[in-house]
Amino acid sequence: MIRGDIPTLNLKIKKVNICTGDSFIALLNKADAIFYDLYQGDRVKISNKKGEEVVVVLNITSHEETLPKGYIGIFEDILTRVKFKNNEVVKIKPQQKPKSISYIRKKLKGKRLSYDEFLEIIRDIIDNQLSHIETTYFVAATYMHELTIKETINLTKAMYHSGDTLNFGHKLVLDKHCVGGVAGNRTTMLVVPIIAAAGYIIPKTSSRSITSAAGTSDTVEVLCKVDLGINQLRKVVESTNACLSWGGALNLAPADDKIIKVEHPVSLDPKGQLLASILAKKKSVGTNILLVDIPVGRDAKIKTKKEAISLKRRFLKVGRALRLKIKVVITDGSSPVGRGIGPALEARDVLWTLRGDPRGDHNLRVKSLFLASKLLAMAGEKRPQQLAKKLLDSGAAYEKFIEIIRAQGGYEVDPSKIRLGNHTFDYTAKKSGVVSHINNKYVNRIARIAGAPVDKEAGVYLNIRKGGIVKKGDVLFKVYSDNNEKIDYAKKYSNDVEGIIIDALD
Amino acid sequence: MIRGDIPTLNLKIKKVNICTGDSFIALLNKADAIFYDLYQGDRVKISNKKGEEVVVVLNITSHEETLPKGYIGIFEDILTRVKFKNNEVVKIKPQQKPKSISYIRKKLKGKRLSYDEFLEIIRDIIDNQLSHIETTYFVAATYMHELTIKETINLTKAMYHSGDTLNFGHKLVLDKHCVGGVAGNRTTMLVVPIIAAAGYIIPKTSSRSITSAAGTSDTVEVLCKVDLGINQLRKVVESTNACLSWGGALNLAPADDKIIKVEHPVSLDPKGQLLASILAKKKSVGTNILLVDIPVGRDAKIKTKKEAISLKRRFLKVGRALRLKIKVVITDGSSPVGRGIGPALEARDVLWTLRGDPRGDHNLRVKSLFLASKLLAMAGEKRPQQLAKKLLDSGAAYEKFIEIIRAQGGYEVDPSKIRLGNHTFDYTAKKSGVVSHINNKYVNRIARIAGAPVDKEAGVYLNIRKGGIVKKGDVLFKVYSDNNEKIDYAKKYSNDVEGIIIDALD
Repeated sequence: MIRGDIPTLNLKIKKVNICTGDSFIALLNKADAIFYDLYQGDRVKISNKKGEEVVVVLNITSHEETLPKGYIGIFEDILTRVKFKNNEVVKIKPQQKPKSISYIRKKLKGKRLSYDEFLEIIRDIIDNQLSHIETTYFVAATYMHELTIKETINLTKAMYHSGDTLNFGHKLVLDKHCVGGVAGNRTTMLVVPIIAAAGYIIPKTSSRSITSAAGTSDTVEVLCKVDLGINQLRKVVESTNACLSWGGALNLAPADDKIIKVEHPVSLDPKGQLLASILAKKKSVGTNILLVDIPVGRDAKIKTKKEAISLKRRFLKVGRALRLKIKVVITDGSSPVGRGIGPALEARDVLWTLRGDPRGDHNLRVKSLFLASKLLAMAGEKRPQQLAKKLLDSGAAYEKFIEIIRAQGGYEVDPSKIRLGNHTFDYTAKKSGVVSHINNKYVNRIARIAGAPVDKEAGVYLNIRKGGIVKKGDVLFKVYSDNNEKIDYAKKYSNDVEGIIIDALD
Repeated sequence: MIRGDIPTLNLKIKKVNICTGDSFIALLNKADAIFYDLYQGDRVKISNKKGEEVVVVLNITSHEETLPKGYIGIFEDILTRVKFKNNEVVKIKPQQKPKSISYIRKKLKGKRLSYDEFLEIIRDIIDNQLSHIETTYFVAATYMHELTIKETINLTKAMYHSGDTLNFGHKLVLDKHCVGGVAGNRTTMLVVPIIAAAGYIIPKTSSRSITSAAGTSDTVEVLCKVDLGINQLRKVVESTNACLSWGGALNLAPADDKIIKVEHPVSLDPKGQLLASILAKKKSVGTNILLVDIPVGRDAKIKTKKEAISLKRRFLKVGRALRLKIKVVITDGSSPVGRGIGPALEARDVLWTLRGDPRGDHNLRVKSLFLASKLLAMAGEKRPQQLAKKLLDSGAAYEKFIEIIRAQGGYEVDPSKIRLGNHTFDYTAKKSGVVSHINNKYVNRIARIAGAPVDKEAGVYLNIRKGGIVKKGDVLFKVYSDNNEKIDYAKKYSNDVEGIIIDALD
């Protein structure tokens, strides 16, 4: 039995100057709600005489000041869809719950969902038709009733079919992805120009940092624009073979952001969702050869080898089913990769390394060459290691990098002249011995307290490596910030928390 | 590593004139959030110079008009806790996530929770310290990883220990509970006066209707006040042995309403939660003898005998562990019980039946006597059926009922003078035959369209019974409403939907 049978009502619009970021929500006064038998969470269609209409989820308020009787309060988000005016008379018509809710219920009961069912859910999430609470049930259900491989494939397809897609019309489109959690791990900025210099297409989109000191996009942004629209991205790739773009500015697998938003409060990370979100974005840009890097370390995202192997298996199964040529490498994520932690410091490391400057970072170079040669091998190159090394050492990769930076509105800079925060402090060793551990989260946190990634100039520069020998009083790292108060907090944090472990030599 | 290390910030209060009904939420401008490294969903403590403080969950807005930089926007809900003023300068200090979130994560992973862990979650829900999204994860987790009996017991205890409790200092406190879903099922209003007339304490709290045409409280309210505070309730029970109070006005197991709010959008009904919520409320009023009625019918809440038996088992196990003398009866919920559906019509049925008036309802009488005698037997009465019948037929129960109504601020009324809606319409049989089914939801829906339960005078009066023989053109039911337009909608709905099935006699 349906709800569509109750009278259509007329109410006046009242704009509520708040953006909820939730689904489309409208407020109704409790007296009206009771009279018309409408409830918190019910859906109604609001339409005006011009034929504009929008389906919203009702919130009920009993505060006459918040919303008087006879009005329907609309949040700013709705105005992106329809241009209702204050005091405009609109019709309100009850709607049934969207079909996607029955699919979410199905998943909550432990049943498997089909492609069509995932697509319906994903479209409703994108379309602001599911509230945060409803989206949360979906995420919780996929976390507790872990998605099968088949379901993960279907979810991935639903995610990329519901967003923009690119097609470069080439046979081979390469890409790399790193699962993350390791400080100073800026290999993308070396791998992309090597691959592009070898003549392959690599339309790389990256993320900004969420909890680390810098994401690839935050670092690239030190040198050029990263928020390319879909057409700009296409142009950059067509002229240079590559791009170093921020994924967030594009409409690729757009449900992802909204899903992440409800995962954050309880720090959930359902594996099926993770895979689907990564692979959907790769499929969106036409990738057919993909290398995935899973760094393992006790303070990285993936903490154990076992976990990494299980994730690798899933990546391979789902990737292959999506007709990707896919390879997964499990790497050492126990310590930071480069020495710079923070956008400017990381950009400097990358440039020095690309230019063959002795101040460049050895580990960053080795790991980037490793990843680039794996990708070249997947593309069919016979001597991939030699090729990668040649492209880097000859300066071809550096030239390609500058070409990409220029295509994205930047210019060539002298890495030693990159601006760093003018307030600094040196953290010194409290005892002599061997550096047995450098905690990724510790260095990330200090860089963030110093202001990274928003203050590009803020960060941490490590003078040491895991396994290195230090003497009491040696400078282990230097912190840079634009703000003296932040330096003080960073200093306090550095001293209060034990993030670098030194084992005495005896 | 903790977040408490970042600077304490000073911001100005801006009141946002909206009541969210969610947890305590405050708005921060995106620029401030970025600068201070704060995120959507982070918790901060806001404090002023007077020492008033509150912990809130942050929402981030990028709209300068919604909230300018330098301000923290507080929703009205927070003002119930602290009296911040517009433009008052307050300190903002980041807080760690509450422990309850780690327990929710634990349950999401399928692990069992202890009493202390449930108590922490329940207290944070009551205290507005968990957001809707976080509460949703809790509900989803208890739905998918069904609570064990031990966990249900712990949750029940956590629920009633976190609210008000009553203690009547008597040996026996009786109560009844119906799982619901059957129209016109007003047995409570007969059972309570019979039990009280027998000299037992029965401090009955009921709910208002959520989706039906009338809850017990909506019906009692035709005759007297139902929103008694805890002290009023105690007085009424002390003077009459009983009460017919609305549970919603009391602070018994107060987490329940907030949990129901996040269950509603996807119509979830986790069994462990259901049991805990019912039994916690009974324990709160000191009940030690409890009769539970589970009506079974294809359009009742419990649809199959199997489901009813499984629920019965859980009720018995959990109830006994909570030291309740408990009995569960499974009854026929296939059709409405009384003839009147809607507050005034149901109150009239109850009064006629209590007064022994021939217009009283036979089924309502039989079912009420059945339930009352079960309860009397549980209390140790030797001839419970005879006693229940005697108390009803002698008028003792009716007198007790009037005594309760008077104690709750009402007075004796002539049932045939109870006001009914002055717009009516008669629904007639479209063919002759035997009434094989009367759909509970159908009659509830018509009564609601006519205006019930808010318009007390609105409703449906059935002229027929399941199994009765009707001729084409006979009036099957009459609809009452105060509003002519609503009558038209009720008529349309009655004709569009097939809710009464007549099998031809051949």
